[in-house]
Amino acid sequence: LVRITRPSSPGFIQEWMRDYFGSEVELSPKLLGFGKSPALLIVDMMNAEGSNDMVERATKNIATILDKAREKRIPIFYTVIEYREDLKDFIPLKLGTIRKHLAGSRYSQVMDALKPRSEIVIKKKVNSAFIGTNLLAYLVGAAVDTVIITGIHTSGCVRATASDSFSYGFKTVIPEECVADIKGDNPHRANLCDLHIRGADVVNLSEVLGYLERIRDVKAADKPR
Amino acid sequence: LVRITRPSSPGFIQEWMRDYFGSEVELSPKLLGFGKSPALLIVDMMNAEGSNDMVERATKNIATILDKAREKRIPIFYTVIEYREDLKDFIPLKLGTIRKHLAGSRYSQVMDALKPRSEIVIKKKVNSAFIGTNLLAYLVGAAVDTVIITGIHTSGCVRATASDSFSYGFKTVIPEECVADIKGDNPHRANLCDLHIRGADVVNLSEVLGYLERIRDVKAADKPR
Amino acid sequence: LVRITRPSSPGFIQEWMRDYFGSEVELSPKLLGFGKSPALLIVDMMNAEGSNDMVERATKNIATILDKAREKRIPIFYTVIEYREDLKDFIPLKLGTIRKHLAGSRYSQVMDALKPRSEIVIKKKVNSAFIGTNLLAYLVGAAVDTVIITGIHTSGCVRATASDSFSYGFKTVIPEECVADIKGDNPHRANLCDLHIRGADVVNLSEVLGYLERIRDVKAADKPR
Amino acid sequence: LVRITRPSSPGFIQEWMRDYFGSEVELSPKLLGFGKSPALLIVDMMNAEGSNDMVERATKNIATILDKAREKRIPIFYTVIEYREDLKDFIPLKLGTIRKHLAGSRYSQVMDALKPRSEIVIKKKVNSAFIGTNLLAYLVGAAVDTVIITGIHTSGCVRATASDSFSYGFKTVIPEECVADIKGDNPHRANLCDLHIRGADVVNLSEVLGYLERIRDVKAADKPR
Repeated sequence: LVRITRPSSPGFIQEWMRDYFGSEVELSPKLLGFGKSPALLIVDMMNAEGSNDMVERATKNIATILDKAREKRIPIFYTVIEYREDLKDFIPLKLGTIRKHLAGSRYSQVMDALKPRSEIVIKKKVNSAFIGTNLLAYLVGAAVDTVIITGIHTSGCVRATASDSFSYGFKTVIPEECVADIKGDNPHRANLCDLHIRGADVVNLSEVLGYLERIRDVKAADKPR
Repeated sequence: LVRITRPSSPGFIQEWMRDYFGSEVELSPKLLGFGKSPALLIVDMMNAEGSNDMVERATKNIATILDKAREKRIPIFYTVIEYREDLKDFIPLKLGTIRKHLAGSRYSQVMDALKPRSEIVIKKKVNSAFIGTNLLAYLVGAAVDTVIITGIHTSGCVRATASDSFSYGFKTVIPEECVADIKGDNPHRANLCDLHIRGADVVNLSEVLGYLERIRDVKAADKPR
Repeated sequence: LVRITRPSSPGFIQEWMRDYFGSEVELSPKLLGFGKSPALLIVDMMNAEGSNDMVERATKNIATILDKAREKRIPIFYTVIEYREDLKDFIPLKLGTIRKHLAGSRYSQVMDALKPRSEIVIKKKVNSAFIGTNLLAYLVGAAVDTVIITGIHTSGCVRATASDSFSYGFKTVIPEECVADIKGDNPHRANLCDLHIRGADVVNLSEVLGYLERIRDVKAADKPR
Repeated sequence: LVRITRPSSPGFIQEWMRDYFGSEVELSPKLLGFGKSPALLIVDMMNAEGSNDMVERATKNIATILDKAREKRIPIFYTVIEYREDLKDFIPLKLGTIRKHLAGSRYSQVMDALKPRSEIVIKKKVNSAFIGTNLLAYLVGAAVDTVIITGIHTSGCVRATASDSFSYGFKTVIPEECVADIKGDNPHRANLCDLHIRGADVVNLSEVLGYLERIRDVKAADKPR
């Protein structure tokens, strides 16, 4: 049972923290561990305008965890970014690229490789999946205590969503191989280090797959409420 | 008038972005600019357990902007972190150090150098000053459109607060000299780069002081409502 | 100028409060008054399954205030209720009737008499228009300080939306002739009395039209951001 | 087990709904029922300025359910209203009376008859216990799925808190004998009818006591996190 709820702290994060925070800071945060009732969150895996190795790696790994989550019938939620064509509903973030996520366009739809079946796809307009959406109500309604966060980009929507997740009291788990940043290793690693010392558990995908394998099937998975 | 609302993009952030995001990414986000009705937010400048040069620099600079904000009578809000001694109200973030911010202790009080007069001091328990507090209502009630964020730490409470600020529709300004991170330059710079490309304007303090100098006095500043 | 910001307290609400609260309670709340920058909110005026005299009266009067708001170019926001056909996204409210508001159906669309032009139509799933939506960000982004609430039903979505509106710091105005309840006079009046003593100004439509007539045109009305 | 999660619909609410909504409306909402992990919420039971029979009845009955909740070690949260003496932090609700709830005064403290032991006492400034507080995070952190709401006043803080509770996905239970309104029977009944048809289960206290009696002890009750 201990193995179920207590993931191992991965070596890579210790190393990244040493590089990022420097030697003068002593930071070896304990993991908060997994809970009894997880949900999988897939953030902004829309049809891509551009990609890189890290994003391709994440796509493949999210497909793996998605399969497992479906098999174990845990609640699954996708997010996409969607604006009107006239951008009247644009909360003025700066990134020019997200202006392309217009309702009806392929850039506002989940990519085929991770195609939703009957899962809820949440439309959002800002970084955090908790702001301007009913995600919180879905999680509470499904009695979720653990949010597994995957998707893109580590330095933006993943960061903001994970930060809100632990601030609202959820155990928050990030399988490193399932998140990515189009802007490269630096923002990917920096943000995972920040999250790991503050409230999220950054772990290896294998730990999360083992955890999902061991929890009992959730009967109500198909109906998050 | 243009100078009032259009700050210059500071050279340092361009340089930091080049280092952080690398050459393969083209990122020169336009500034969103200042609005008509600013508020000053001073995040977590409590009596310190430890300090470093950056934090001391920020303390001095916040004293300067605080003087100006009081002179111009714009709304000012402080935040502190405060837990009960038994930590029953601890939202389980990981950082061991913040467990010391107990109600009544000096670690839960604003440092003398920035001592509040009659301003509202908001007690918070998580990173973002918008979660679990009435900050939003105070800002709306004071008809604020621009939030100037100062304080510590860049990679934690400043990051989360700034991210929520622009996600809730506020023009969000960070004078770089007024924020600091006890964990050093890397997290300070990485997080300012992330914020700057996403929704906040990271600018020089002199730009913000010039802006405050030019706006008309706000009569209702003493009564945010 | 006084007339602009200080509406008269309507006689009807005094009378309703006497009936509802009884003689033993002394309640003559002052009005909080209008602000400088209003928005019009039209709640849940979808194609109806049923109607009554009060709803028809509200429809006609909302058309009037909508015309004025468009003429004066103040920000306008609609809400509708929308669920997936499989109801997986149903936050389990009890009212059987709202289960009919399925995406794509006419019951999830604003009625022709009040047809949106380019205004934002917010899709919501619970009573309050502030929960699970970006309404707050739109209002902040448009620098709104006063929310004029119209629509249905007084005892449900109007009540919850108005309550959140003043709790988040907005001056909250309800022109009585522009709200209605399919369940009759009792819930309509009871809820307006509750709101009026707590934080909303329940006034006559003529007061609100006079106020809108007097404020200067808002240039940015077409672009709430 | 069925009896545990399926309370009986009380006769009184049917009768009140008939009076309040009138004969033309057909409303016999099913109960949503109890969940697996309840919390008790005690709203605004501060030292009173005034009282009436209903408030005294509620006080006595809350003492009873509080005893049971402590015995069964379920999470318990109190709320109080608290403002600074200069009222700078007053979100401008209208009710003159709540201006008396100043920090340090007896009007901002829970009454002796219901004295908190080690439970969390949440300070709030508006009607809903979910706005401007960390209640949501405490509930999520304690894996609560069912919120039992008691306290005053039915037409204000109880109404707003219950409405937010079901809108955020919690099963929301109101034992009628444990809530009260200083303004008399009309607002008490009207608001319970509104809540009952929309998302809360208004039931008899005996049903809730029976439910609490039957659930297994919660070990972690003393530590909501």
